[in-house]
Amino acid sequence: MKYLEDIRVGDVYEIGRHTFSAEEIKSFARRFDPQHFHVDEEAAKTSHFGALCASGWHTALAWMRLMVAYRRREAEAARARGEPVAGIGPALGFRELKWLKPVYVDDTIDYRGEVIETRVSRSRPGLGLMTIRSTGVNQSGETVISFLSTTFVERRSGATGD
Amino acid sequence: MKYLEDIRVGDVYEIGRHTFSAEEIKSFARRFDPQHFHVDEEAAKTSHFGALCASGWHTALAWMRLMVAYRRREAEAARARGEPVAGIGPALGFRELKWLKPVYVDDTIDYRGEVIETRVSRSRPGLGLMTIRSTGVNQSGETVISFLSTTFVERRSGATGD
Repeated sequence: MKYLEDIRVGDVYEIGRHTFSAEEIKSFARRFDPQHFHVDEEAAKTSHFGALCASGWHTALAWMRLMVAYRRREAEAARARGEPVAGIGPALGFRELKWLKPVYVDDTIDYRGEVIETRVSRSRPGLGLMTIRSTGVNQSGETVISFLSTTFVERRSGATGD
Repeated sequence: MKYLEDIRVGDVYEIGRHTFSAEEIKSFARRFDPQHFHVDEEAAKTSHFGALCASGWHTALAWMRLMVAYRRREAEAARARGEPVAGIGPALGFRELKWLKPVYVDDTIDYRGEVIETRVSRSRPGLGLMTIRSTGVNQSGETVISFLSTTFVERRSGATGD
C-alpha cells in the first residue's frame, strides 16, 4: 500500500468483482449462516427475499478475499517498479456495515473503496490512519453492501512493526 | 424469538461459546482472509500479533453460526411449551463492529447479547425493532469483539411476511 503522504481523499481503489453461484451461496451458508433463505431455494421463495440469496457475511467476505489479493498485487507492482512498499495494519473494525439489497444467485458484485479521510494517528504519531468507504455494486448498479473501515498506514518518516 | 412487547432493555441472551483451533483458524483464513498472521504460525510470530490468531471475520461468523442455533433452540422450546413463536427479520447491518483483542489458538469465546433498545418501527408500525449489543469474551474475561445490530421483530398485534 501507499504511504500516508501519498494517499488523497477521493482516491478510489478498484478491488475486484465476484459472482455468487447458487452452490457457493448454499455452501457458505450451511457452514456459517444456515437460515432457510440462504440454504434452500424452495424455502427462499416464500421468504420475504423471494429467492435464494447470499448471507450478508458472504458478501462481506468476498470483499475481504479480494482485498487481500488486491493489496498483494499492488505491493508486487510497486516492488517491480523498484518502489518501497508501505506496511498496512489490520483493520480495527468496521462501522456502518449495511446490507442494502439482497445478493441473488449469479449476481456479480463489483467492489471498490474510496478514501474519505486521512490523518496522523493521535496515539501513535509515527503512523497514519486512513478511512475508506467500501461498497459492493451489483450488475444493475445497485449498492448491495457498504461499510467504513479505518486502518493504520505507514508514514514516510515513520516505522511500523508489521 | 419473543414478541416486541415481551422484550425488555437489559435482557441478556447467552448465545454460546466457541473454541478456535489452529486448524480451523488457518482453514477459514486460507479461504477468506489469507493474511500471514492468520495462516502461518511461523510468520505470525514476527507479526505485531506475536502468534497465529483468527481472522476477525471468523470471530464474527462463529457468532452468526451460534446465533442461528440459539434462535432455533428458543423457537423449539417455545413450541414445546405450546407458545406462539414470533418471527424475526434478518439483520439490516451492523454498527460499531470492533475487534478489540486478537483471538489466539485454543481461545474459547463466550458470546452474549444484551438488548439496549426496543421500539416500534416508524416505517412499518406493525413491526418492532430491537437493538442488541453483542460481545464475545475470552477465557481471561477480555472482550475480543463487540458490535450493535438492529433487527425487525414481530409485535403481538402485527404481522410479518417472514
